Amino acid sequence: MSTITPELYVRVQSFFEEYGRLLDEDRLETWVELFTEDARYEIVSRENHEQGLPLSLMLCDSRDMLHDRIYSLREANIYNIHTDCHVIGTARILHENGVLSAVAPYSLFQSTQEGETRLFSVGRYHLTFAETDGRLSISRLRVVTDTGAILTLLATPI
Amino acid sequence: MSTITPELYVRVQSFFEEYGRLLDEDRLETWVELFTEDARYEIVSRENHEQGLPLSLMLCDSRDMLHDRIYSLREANIYNIHTDCHVIGTARILHENGVLSAVAPYSLFQSTQEGETRLFSVGRYHLTFAETDGRLSISRLRVVTDTGAILTLLATPI
Amino acid sequence: MSTITPELYVRVQSFFEEYGRLLDEDRLETWVELFTEDARYEIVSRENHEQGLPLSLMLCDSRDMLHDRIYSLREANIYNIHTDCHVIGTARILHENGVLSAVAPYSLFQSTQEGETRLFSVGRYHLTFAETDGRLSISRLRVVTDTGAILTLLATPI
Repeated sequence: MSTITPELYVRVQSFFEEYGRLLDEDRLETWVELFTEDARYEIVSRENHEQGLPLSLMLCDSRDMLHDRIYSLREANIYNIHTDCHVIGTARILHENGVLSAVAPYSLFQSTQEGETRLFSVGRYHLTFAETDGRLSISRLRVVTDTGAILTLLATPI
Repeated sequence: MSTITPELYVRVQSFFEEYGRLLDEDRLETWVELFTEDARYEIVSRENHEQGLPLSLMLCDSRDMLHDRIYSLREANIYNIHTDCHVIGTARILHENGVLSAVAPYSLFQSTQEGETRLFSVGRYHLTFAETDGRLSISRLRVVTDTGAILTLLATPI
Repeated sequence: MSTITPELYVRVQSFFEEYGRLLDEDRLETWVELFTEDARYEIVSRENHEQGLPLSLMLCDSRDMLHDRIYSLREANIYNIHTDCHVIGTARILHENGVLSAVAPYSLFQSTQEGETRLFSVGRYHLTFAETDGRLSISRLRVVTDTGAILTLLATPI
């Protein structure tokens, strides 16, 4: 394992900060732009992740597919019934063979329009970065959620 | 946007750490000293923040006013019925035109004397710093809370 | 107080990250290796911590004792009924008289096999480091939990 410089640490932590903030501010179209064109985004339960099962709670195989999903959310207007708040912990950063990846724990809280907040999901982001023109993007993101039984409630990304 | 150096990042994260710790340790008088003399501290609901409405859940227009509030809390002894625990995420840092500001997500948990813990509030700190003699202070802090309906319970600052 | 360099900050944050991740991934035997041979690990309620009372919710006086405890957990198979997720905040770092220590707030969530998540404990780690061959270890860790009444549920470390 190579050493993680403070510069790289700040860069990765700041990336996760932006990731969470864009979702929380409901700027989903800008959030999508964090991904590369051929990025893969999926949400899997921890159980399936650990057992290597292919079943996903959400799966998008490209940025276009993510765009479509966001578009559907806007049309359905379902997304509007809650607001998100992400509190993301310290990432484990790996920089091996020229590939930068990170694993970070998250807690995601949702509040209703009436102001009631509940714990929606906790788990970890498993993220592989791409770098183009000095800018980090997501080439692959697997959200491993400890919290199950949220299938029908999965209106917005985690 | 200027580049955020690791030194500045650590400084801002450590400032939020101290902010949360002083509240959690019930060192409210020391917490007040984090503010400048003419600082503004307010708690607003996310809804009012986004719609630009002036209504606050709490508003102090100067450090003296914060001192008064803390004094009242000590007198009333209400603050004593719970303990706080702040878990604050990564801040977005802006350094523009000589003004340093930061936005950081927080989760605040409260525990009763019986040891029951509940989620009290989640949201984001919107903080503008002042710097005097190489020391950071708060010149303005707006706490935007996703969690509403806590008006009557707002004994202590968030 | 000496200045905290970005390098030291990253090192300490990354240490807590590894601490939480090893517990969350149920790699308890590897987690034990974070401790020195004569390390002390204890969990105390905030009330007892603040009043200086000696009563612990869990106490291990050496790494061997931690090993024994983990072994018992494996035998009893009780640990298996939930999964942990630690979200740890920014640490306060002290480097005085050659001794490195840190205090960091944590939130710990537990999920059942059915995928229900609840807040299990919040509080702060009070950690004193040892350094051997350029590697950080725990020489003393006191977990101060705000959340009480978890005595009978304390199957795994926090």
